[in-house]
Amino acid sequence: MAEIFLKNAWYCAGWNHEFHQGAGAVIARKIAGERLVLYRTRTGHVVAFQDRCPHRQAALSLGRKEGDSLRCMYHGLKFNSEGICEEIPGQDNIPTDCRVRTYPVIEKNSWVWVWMGDPAQADPGLICFSVGPENPNWNMKISKMHVETNYLWEIENLADLSHIAWVHNDTVGGDLAFSRIKPKHTTTARGTHTSFWVYSHRPLGAIRHLFPEDARIDSNWEIDQTVPCNWNMRVRFFTPGTETEGPSNGELMADTWTCQSVTPCDDDSVDYYYSWGADNASEARMPGLSDLLGGTLDIAFNEDKVMLEAQHLRRKEMPDFKMTRILHDAGPSMILRVLNTLIKKENEIRPVLEPA
Amino acid sequence: MAEIFLKNAWYCAGWNHEFHQGAGAVIARKIAGERLVLYRTRTGHVVAFQDRCPHRQAALSLGRKEGDSLRCMYHGLKFNSEGICEEIPGQDNIPTDCRVRTYPVIEKNSWVWVWMGDPAQADPGLICFSVGPENPNWNMKISKMHVETNYLWEIENLADLSHIAWVHNDTVGGDLAFSRIKPKHTTTARGTHTSFWVYSHRPLGAIRHLFPEDARIDSNWEIDQTVPCNWNMRVRFFTPGTETEGPSNGELMADTWTCQSVTPCDDDSVDYYYSWGADNASEARMPGLSDLLGGTLDIAFNEDKVMLEAQHLRRKEMPDFKMTRILHDAGPSMILRVLNTLIKKENEIRPVLEPA
Amino acid sequence: MAEIFLKNAWYCAGWNHEFHQGAGAVIARKIAGERLVLYRTRTGHVVAFQDRCPHRQAALSLGRKEGDSLRCMYHGLKFNSEGICEEIPGQDNIPTDCRVRTYPVIEKNSWVWVWMGDPAQADPGLICFSVGPENPNWNMKISKMHVETNYLWEIENLADLSHIAWVHNDTVGGDLAFSRIKPKHTTTARGTHTSFWVYSHRPLGAIRHLFPEDARIDSNWEIDQTVPCNWNMRVRFFTPGTETEGPSNGELMADTWTCQSVTPCDDDSVDYYYSWGADNASEARMPGLSDLLGGTLDIAFNEDKVMLEAQHLRRKEMPDFKMTRILHDAGPSMILRVLNTLIKKENEIRPVLEPA
Repeated sequence: MAEIFLKNAWYCAGWNHEFHQGAGAVIARKIAGERLVLYRTRTGHVVAFQDRCPHRQAALSLGRKEGDSLRCMYHGLKFNSEGICEEIPGQDNIPTDCRVRTYPVIEKNSWVWVWMGDPAQADPGLICFSVGPENPNWNMKISKMHVETNYLWEIENLADLSHIAWVHNDTVGGDLAFSRIKPKHTTTARGTHTSFWVYSHRPLGAIRHLFPEDARIDSNWEIDQTVPCNWNMRVRFFTPGTETEGPSNGELMADTWTCQSVTPCDDDSVDYYYSWGADNASEARMPGLSDLLGGTLDIAFNEDKVMLEAQHLRRKEMPDFKMTRILHDAGPSMILRVLNTLIKKENEIRPVLEPA
Repeated sequence: MAEIFLKNAWYCAGWNHEFHQGAGAVIARKIAGERLVLYRTRTGHVVAFQDRCPHRQAALSLGRKEGDSLRCMYHGLKFNSEGICEEIPGQDNIPTDCRVRTYPVIEKNSWVWVWMGDPAQADPGLICFSVGPENPNWNMKISKMHVETNYLWEIENLADLSHIAWVHNDTVGGDLAFSRIKPKHTTTARGTHTSFWVYSHRPLGAIRHLFPEDARIDSNWEIDQTVPCNWNMRVRFFTPGTETEGPSNGELMADTWTCQSVTPCDDDSVDYYYSWGADNASEARMPGLSDLLGGTLDIAFNEDKVMLEAQHLRRKEMPDFKMTRILHDAGPSMILRVLNTLIKKENEIRPVLEPA
Repeated sequence: MAEIFLKNAWYCAGWNHEFHQGAGAVIARKIAGERLVLYRTRTGHVVAFQDRCPHRQAALSLGRKEGDSLRCMYHGLKFNSEGICEEIPGQDNIPTDCRVRTYPVIEKNSWVWVWMGDPAQADPGLICFSVGPENPNWNMKISKMHVETNYLWEIENLADLSHIAWVHNDTVGGDLAFSRIKPKHTTTARGTHTSFWVYSHRPLGAIRHLFPEDARIDSNWEIDQTVPCNWNMRVRFFTPGTETEGPSNGELMADTWTCQSVTPCDDDSVDYYYSWGADNASEARMPGLSDLLGGTLDIAFNEDKVMLEAQHLRRKEMPDFKMTRILHDAGPSMILRVLNTLIKKENEIRPVLEPA
């Protein structure tokens, strides 16, 4: 199933603080079916190697940092930060083919990005926009989670927010109005933009106790989803206004960003990196709001995890099961079409997932 | 290996009290390779659905009861008790193909039975006879167990009781005489009847301590085994008489029934539902006997579980291992022949298990 | 992958004390892909059967010793120590094909050896040399371990001791000089002999604390490795002399033997049996040395286990990964060539592992 992955793409390998300069920070990851080992050099750059020694496929992630180099701790072969072998203990001559595959790495917005395809095509401009925790205007709270599902089901999940009415009633949903949203989807260079307003709805489950019992709010949701599975959303909450379409005429209560990246490890699991937080003005109005939002995502994504892992079992069992199309599939269909087109162009193979 | 299952048959899905009307009783089962979800409606009927939403294969067993309907808690599709979609949140039109496969369900003798084949052929008359715990003349004690083996090995196990001499020496065997039984097997409409007497044998392991050390008893064993794997046995214990063939002329001490149903989940595991108990007169003579018998089955079937799970590993490893036929295989051969004939008729495929 | 195993070979099934005459000592093993059950008869011989009853493949390792016989505890078939069925409960006639496959067994140097191939070719002379714990001149301390790797990676590991510089720095390595050894490898009848001296090196990690901080020693390593994966090494430690090639002119401090046998269970795991100890004179000079050496192997082989299990995952994932050859591969290449030649002769198949 390797063809389900877009290779010429940046994948999030984690939060940059994970890749610190300590001796123990030699970090194994599986990304798009390939094993990687990442570490930070003395000059502060993160390097990514294939996690197998060219000698006998020992795990380089069991290796040892020596200056900017990484030594395989099985037979001692030492590789510089470009993956070139600079020492084979017991011999003077080093074969030129004795090198480790390296992957382009870029740090941006506190995320570490790895390019899994042809290095010559590794365009930094393709890294998705995001608001990182280092941004002084926002109070982004970060976390991560491992989920045993296929990343395509995560893409579908994120591209149709109507599910928050059901899966996340107690956390990031809380009103049936969410099940009836009419989002406007448009295609972008490498993804989709989704936009919708909800009026006079109950506050989200996770913040409802902060309001009077009969409180209502308006909200605006602006989402950029890009391939392979990056997802940025600005959500703003307003006091309830009188509009029923277009922008609310209520007063802005909170302006928040959530930035999320789902990295497929292999066909059956993903690493999910995410953040949520409010801007300084909102945090001043509602102290503690950003911590609340960040912590809520851990709970909400555990709700998704149960659903997506059960769904994955079923979709693996019956890949040819004829599925019913509903209106809310418009978002998932659009982003999957973008992804499929890029994968097809890359591989000239059949679509991996029929647009619903 | 799906062809190892008889589809046009009733399979036991559990004891009826498991399917109560509480909100949480939305119950997942795997039967004959298919995932099912079962719940009881307000009108008291148990319905069985395929456990995958027609939209995106989400687990309906993670769903929510609403009146007699079941709502998928991923995107909120709601299905009535006939599996027909009655709501798709966010849209007015419901496609006619938006329905969940349903399975005929019948409750009988406190067991819930599901028909896994063509609904048009679901004949209630094919449900096996059994004595349920609701029967006022009998004191049936019920239980269940999950075993990691193939159901065909359970069929063989139940069709040759000589194994109780070895596997169950401390529970439902207890005398080497059981290893030398000469049962009379006859075919029935959808199975076999097996009958034998054992004379002047030591009381079963589980009840021996209730008797003097040198006590002997006579016993009669009458078994109806039907496809796929239902098993009913009336066992009667007598004071030792002087006969050595035909009915004992001893005095009846205890009249007992055990009703058992083995439901294949898939090729590698079964759910086993079983009961044992004495009639009122026997219970009056030996107070507590029914509890003792029911509890003994849990112990005895753990003895089988160890044997059958080890056997399953070995039979999977060497499916072509040439096996030796013994006289005690007559019972297993006969019931497997009945099962094979029915499966062949259904599928027109080769026999799944060569009669030994 | 069954062809990766040499069948006409003796495999170590364990330490002889494991196969005692107690009722419970009916011992299951998996060797070279086959399931075995072993037990010791009253006459003191260990017999090895295929661990599947010829009747229905029940596990004979769940069976019961009766005198010198083993009874299957499923339906009571009883087999004498030659595997011939001597009782089928419930019938008088015993088919001549009702027998269990047996395997030649020999005990030598406290190890139990099983021949997995053609019994007619089972030459006791092919059992590898070893120094057992029963040897009065040596104080051999024994142990065992299960490792989830392929035995070929164990062979490579043992045939190139340069890895002790890296993997075992704190136990059986401790000086980078080990990474630069120039061992002399020669082929033997069914394996290789390897010999090297190391001069003026730091004492091994596990014994270093017994010496002054700047202590240096000389050492001599003489290894016999034979197929499938037997490994005997005499290691002698000397006070540092002035030689830099050939035998040390230092004074002998300790003379030690370690005998090791790696038995493949299947393609993915091995049972590893090993010992290490000093001779009486060395033990007198350094009381407790043998316990120290024996216990050190448990720690050192856990160091290998981490490395070899990670390597196994990677080599299974990419069997065609092009690997770089280094000088230290000379030893592994030589012993694998011997093994491959024997397996090819046996099977007339392609080499299982290309000499590096």
